Amino acid sequence: MNNRTFRAIERIVGEKNCSCQKEDLACYAYDATGSHFLPEVVAFPSSRDEIAALMQLAYQEHFFVTPRGAGSGMTGGSLPIQGGLVMVLKRLNRILDIDRENLIAKVEPGVVTAHFHQAVERLGLFYPPDPASSDFSTLGGNLAECAGGPRAVKYGVTRDYVLGLEAVLPSGECIQVGVQTAKGVVGYDLTRLLVGSEGTLGIITGMTLRLLPLPAAIKTMTAVFEHMETAARAVSEIMRRGIIPRSIEYMDNASIRCVEKFLQNGLPISAGAILLLEVDGDEEEASRTAVKLKDLCESLGAAAVHLARTEEDRAALWKARKAISPALYQYGPDKINEDIVVPKSKIPDMVRKIAALQAETGLTMASFGHAGDGNIHVNIILDKKKSSDLEKAEAAVHALFDYTLALGGTISGEHGVGITKASYIEKEIGVVELALMKKIKAVFDPKGLLNPGKIFPVA
Amino acid sequence: MNNRTFRAIERIVGEKNCSCQKEDLACYAYDATGSHFLPEVVAFPSSRDEIAALMQLAYQEHFFVTPRGAGSGMTGGSLPIQGGLVMVLKRLNRILDIDRENLIAKVEPGVVTAHFHQAVERLGLFYPPDPASSDFSTLGGNLAECAGGPRAVKYGVTRDYVLGLEAVLPSGECIQVGVQTAKGVVGYDLTRLLVGSEGTLGIITGMTLRLLPLPAAIKTMTAVFEHMETAARAVSEIMRRGIIPRSIEYMDNASIRCVEKFLQNGLPISAGAILLLEVDGDEEEASRTAVKLKDLCESLGAAAVHLARTEEDRAALWKARKAISPALYQYGPDKINEDIVVPKSKIPDMVRKIAALQAETGLTMASFGHAGDGNIHVNIILDKKKSSDLEKAEAAVHALFDYTLALGGTISGEHGVGITKASYIEKEIGVVELALMKKIKAVFDPKGLLNPGKIFPVA
Repeated sequence: MNNRTFRAIERIVGEKNCSCQKEDLACYAYDATGSHFLPEVVAFPSSRDEIAALMQLAYQEHFFVTPRGAGSGMTGGSLPIQGGLVMVLKRLNRILDIDRENLIAKVEPGVVTAHFHQAVERLGLFYPPDPASSDFSTLGGNLAECAGGPRAVKYGVTRDYVLGLEAVLPSGECIQVGVQTAKGVVGYDLTRLLVGSEGTLGIITGMTLRLLPLPAAIKTMTAVFEHMETAARAVSEIMRRGIIPRSIEYMDNASIRCVEKFLQNGLPISAGAILLLEVDGDEEEASRTAVKLKDLCESLGAAAVHLARTEEDRAALWKARKAISPALYQYGPDKINEDIVVPKSKIPDMVRKIAALQAETGLTMASFGHAGDGNIHVNIILDKKKSSDLEKAEAAVHALFDYTLALGGTISGEHGVGITKASYIEKEIGVVELALMKKIKAVFDPKGLLNPGKIFPVA
Repeated sequence: MNNRTFRAIERIVGEKNCSCQKEDLACYAYDATGSHFLPEVVAFPSSRDEIAALMQLAYQEHFFVTPRGAGSGMTGGSLPIQGGLVMVLKRLNRILDIDRENLIAKVEPGVVTAHFHQAVERLGLFYPPDPASSDFSTLGGNLAECAGGPRAVKYGVTRDYVLGLEAVLPSGECIQVGVQTAKGVVGYDLTRLLVGSEGTLGIITGMTLRLLPLPAAIKTMTAVFEHMETAARAVSEIMRRGIIPRSIEYMDNASIRCVEKFLQNGLPISAGAILLLEVDGDEEEASRTAVKLKDLCESLGAAAVHLARTEEDRAALWKARKAISPALYQYGPDKINEDIVVPKSKIPDMVRKIAALQAETGLTMASFGHAGDGNIHVNIILDKKKSSDLEKAEAAVHALFDYTLALGGTISGEHGVGITKASYIEKEIGVVELALMKKIKAVFDPKGLLNPGKIFPVA
């Protein structure tokens, strides 16, 4: 990018809101994958008009643009792998409207997910999508990746809460898609085409989100199972009996041992699985369902069920679940975190497969995640500096993905493809389907300037 | 279409499964709009392979293909307005799998919606989308239009229950999109692009649907309000208090009078609105919520609330709601049925607007529908043989749509655009957005052979 172009960027966003200094660029070169790609310029636009002007400039001058929220993505979606401009959307951080009568909100993409949760909850409202990164991730990033989280089993994913969007196309043109109402079916569903498109089709500059009333009460419990199979059968049976918990998380034996080593909290290290179950509703309903669920877990083979009686108790139960990710670093400096999904009845098969892969490769592996959706976070611990580790881990990921697909699953439930899974996408997506997606990309981005190198395998 | 082409069609589906006889063609020339367009051939393929072969032939020989379910669409989606082949999908009517453990079903597009409801309900499962036509409409048609119905307020629309699809492209190629699991975010969301695309992008040949456990109990009540405003405020307030009924239907005063004249059932003809409310859950929860809701309606200004005590009583309450459509024919031989959506707090404004339009045009108008979603069925009664009626009705529709959009609404909540709303689509969809949609159409259907003349306004 030449100096003239940088000056033009400066004129759009102002001198203070862009930089080509290496120390500034370094701050926007990483994401949660741990990879680094230095952009040539970073800019912080404050409005849709500035974003449109930047994109028009990019279109005219032919430079790459990578939009970025908080950089908390797990698959490299916000990494500027071909340089160019990183467009940081954090200044578009206004909650424009929370409409209590119609249960909708209008927000900008740079709003931090947890801030939005707090804002709506103060009004007795509820925005269910809750990715693990919600304390720092932004709503724009959540939409771009179609983020999920532990409440998806009852409430669905980000896609299910997006009614309409405003976006800037790679040409710099602005579009408004979807509706501001509960329903709408006029024309093709460009809203859901943009959601989960990983910032490759347009830059989301505004969104209309659906809200629910905030459940008055939440009850949390853990259920310890001797065998993973029994736990998985219990999950299916619970839902078939008409109880849809808002969360059904699980930890496999490897995760339990790892967390116990880390926290020394008294977890049952010989257990095959621990389920973390949470129900909600009004006080009466939540209490009644919790008791029903506790009894059901016991009748379905749980060795022990612990129902949290206080808020502190509840936090303690979540602590173990949330400690898995950091705890795994006890076993090695690097971690590959996949988010495969299998039919939930197949979770035991997958857990056995992971154990077999661990035995084969000698690498530590653990699985945990959203059992109610069959969405499994498989973690492989390695030292990326060791080429033998890398090779083994890569072979394990291949085997894992192949088995996932053989079970009728998908290689990503909520993290997206980005760069880390682009070379695997052809395992899941057929030739004709991939060609359609590439043509859709070309419709939106004929010059291929927006978030290049993501989703699609390098030809 | 020449004789050689007809013979080729015959070879694909068999002699008994196609026809170019006028009496056969006439049976597939209409839909619920009351319009008629004669196709040149009608064919009844029995499998995806036959559909693919027909589509390959169409692609090679350049003839138009219009897919058709039960022909119950309200906007002309299945009308062969440019002739060619009508492809009737009723023979693909198998429920292939109902997976109780994973709460998913695999079905073919020709399955009648109500048959599917019965099949899953026998197993204690639940498929919520329930368009008014469900006794005869097919799941394929429901998906093509993204059908809604009265349960959408709690359970969402068809889109929310489609996990994956199998379809034949206009080129005759087969695609599989989406997933067989609860979650999935690999590549662009072609599943939801096909849902609601009104049969213009591909022919759906198979689908994977999400199921829920069947609620054990349903409680139904009606609440009579003196003024529409009070009723609308009650709807907002009910949901804000954390009660999400599975249905909140309303009838305006014009609908009440019309139904009473038709049924002579003792409806309160001076009431501004009647709400029909339904809650579900297990027996205890449904009963408790029903009482809460009854009290709430009373405290929010309902003049009378009647809670159904028996199944017969419940059916009687729905009878009035379901009688509106036929009852309206008392006032004239033809009816325009729109399905606008406004923010639910704006329903009273819309009801006032409809009254004003009725006064202006002298045409009988009534509104009713899904108050919980703001989805209003506005019915305009006319005699289509009278050109003055037609002109007035058309002007009223224009005014109605303009006001809908001014209130932040959409011109279709669940019926789609088809041919009846194609000339209005530019009111709602901008130039850039419409150009994107047309380019997406060209990606899927470069020769423009599949369901021509739908959605997009004639240039």
